[in-house]
Amino acid sequence: MDLMKKTIARIDNRDGRLAEEAQKRLDNLTKPQGSLGRLEEFAKCIVEITGMKNPKLGRKVIFTMAGDHGVVENNVSAFPKEVTPQMVYNFLKGGAGINVLARHVGARVVIVDMGVACDLKGDPSLIIKKVNYGTRNMAKGPAMSREEAIASIENGIKVFEDERNNGIDIAGTGDMGIGNTTPSSAIVSVITGRDVEEVTGRGTGINDRALTCKIAAIKEALKINRPDPRDGLDVLTKVGGFEIGGLAGVILAAASHRIPVVIDGFISGAAALIAYTLEPKTKDYMIAAHCSVEQGHKAALAHLGLRPILDLDLRLGEGTGAALAMHIVEAGVKILNEMATFESAGVSEKNG
Amino acid sequence: MDLMKKTIARIDNRDGRLAEEAQKRLDNLTKPQGSLGRLEEFAKCIVEITGMKNPKLGRKVIFTMAGDHGVVENNVSAFPKEVTPQMVYNFLKGGAGINVLARHVGARVVIVDMGVACDLKGDPSLIIKKVNYGTRNMAKGPAMSREEAIASIENGIKVFEDERNNGIDIAGTGDMGIGNTTPSSAIVSVITGRDVEEVTGRGTGINDRALTCKIAAIKEALKINRPDPRDGLDVLTKVGGFEIGGLAGVILAAASHRIPVVIDGFISGAAALIAYTLEPKTKDYMIAAHCSVEQGHKAALAHLGLRPILDLDLRLGEGTGAALAMHIVEAGVKILNEMATFESAGVSEKNG
Repeated sequence: MDLMKKTIARIDNRDGRLAEEAQKRLDNLTKPQGSLGRLEEFAKCIVEITGMKNPKLGRKVIFTMAGDHGVVENNVSAFPKEVTPQMVYNFLKGGAGINVLARHVGARVVIVDMGVACDLKGDPSLIIKKVNYGTRNMAKGPAMSREEAIASIENGIKVFEDERNNGIDIAGTGDMGIGNTTPSSAIVSVITGRDVEEVTGRGTGINDRALTCKIAAIKEALKINRPDPRDGLDVLTKVGGFEIGGLAGVILAAASHRIPVVIDGFISGAAALIAYTLEPKTKDYMIAAHCSVEQGHKAALAHLGLRPILDLDLRLGEGTGAALAMHIVEAGVKILNEMATFESAGVSEKNG
Repeated sequence: MDLMKKTIARIDNRDGRLAEEAQKRLDNLTKPQGSLGRLEEFAKCIVEITGMKNPKLGRKVIFTMAGDHGVVENNVSAFPKEVTPQMVYNFLKGGAGINVLARHVGARVVIVDMGVACDLKGDPSLIIKKVNYGTRNMAKGPAMSREEAIASIENGIKVFEDERNNGIDIAGTGDMGIGNTTPSSAIVSVITGRDVEEVTGRGTGINDRALTCKIAAIKEALKINRPDPRDGLDVLTKVGGFEIGGLAGVILAAASHRIPVVIDGFISGAAALIAYTLEPKTKDYMIAAHCSVEQGHKAALAHLGLRPILDLDLRLGEGTGAALAMHIVEAGVKILNEMATFESAGVSEKNG
């Protein structure tokens, strides 16, 4: 609990002192004022987050965290749960979607076992922070103990702190876990106060029967566990997941170091809600990557007041949307750092 | 006229023969089917355009074409017209928005003088294809002669053909020309049949008085010139611009070689309408980069049936949106080429 408390205590609001100066510089660049739209916003946002006049985002890191979910026994997913470890091996071999997109944008991927239901074969690049062998079935009782919830968050913080030794200018979140849209919908429903049906979608592509099972499982979990929406730890304990807790830890750690963190899709959005409930200032450090097809994602973003960068009908997770979005954010920062000014380029300014 | 006719004659429809196979491969990759949304669409689109099973988009080229406009004497722009050559020099020195973003995505920028109103100082990397020293004032008569319209299109084709020697996997369009949203609004109004007011915006950021002048100039131009919406050459002649004609030429040339062409923003959209009017099959090769703030852009995209990739409130032109969008399209192609399949990665498939 100490590490989590200390991390949260270090989180401050965004630093607005350099915002005006950044705006002035953007307005002096050789373009009509404001004509690079959201790219200019991203640049200002990164200046405020980092407190640096000329921030650089070359060292991009995506944290892809894996965990299993006891609720899969209620037939909530289209894929068997052995896919979770299989996909972790796929990440390690570089063949998954996140690997391709991270390479494309020049980001590192940090793969973490937060709670896969089996022991994974040793691989030096796999980080093992397993809290337990999957969560318990939330439709029958709490998904984990409060101690496990804290451990998952603190393990996420530790992973981030360790990776900082390799340099992190901007972080991204990513997830893997068969069944994990189910706890995510539960979290979003609890924290945003929306109906379960409104925030529950088809995940990897389930049929009507599985969707009925999924909604029933979430309703049952909320009924028997009664998570307290004002207590992020309670929500995580009762209807969460180990990878979701780990990602909440990554978000807290990033915010505590003034490092921007790009929130991927629906599962990452649920983790962001947990982090936000623990410390609302974390929102200042979040950037929403994209608008997921998963219907509860909009509710999560609305609650956080975040506007997504991309809208590409993605619903894969893993950090795929975060990878593409952080490259766009970096474009904004480069505009600020690299464009010529009217004066330096000898370009005439606007009339009148 | 011969070069234009020959180029148009070579343009065929998109090749759908490999589409089914590409879809099958996408469905076998280690992800839920369709979960990478539009990235998968882009991959299929590029397979169909190029007719290649494993297309690569490493050689990305943006054609940024500059020209001046006689109609600026009607006070339609917020910037003085000497900004056109000044910005060309800025492009050549690498300090403009397009330079920064092209470097960011690994694209080359080809800078072309299609009709700047003064002689530009020699620079080996500037391509001079000047048709004339700016257009004439379209509010007083045709912006150019029919011969000049043909020359602008054919010069655009020549620039593309020359650059092909350096390799082009995907092309992007970009523009520079003080006043050029005015002819673009005129073109969009004529070809889409929408009211002038509906498709005329504030360009670089003009005030209400200038907007009134701009709308009046466009209405006058349409009234005295009566361009024929079914004849793209007539529209270009009467209310076009040399850089717009050049970009139409780039689009025709790209389509004739089965090379995808990413249409930047509003001015590029007007050029795309000219190309489409000359040969509707060009549409098969167009990809819309983004949705511009400039209000007529939506009308142009709707007429072409194109859905933009990005929505970042951009309104700079130069090819800035095209640069970012082509990198996203490339991401889709890499997904197709680089991701592991369920079989190769040993990942279990969906139940039932």
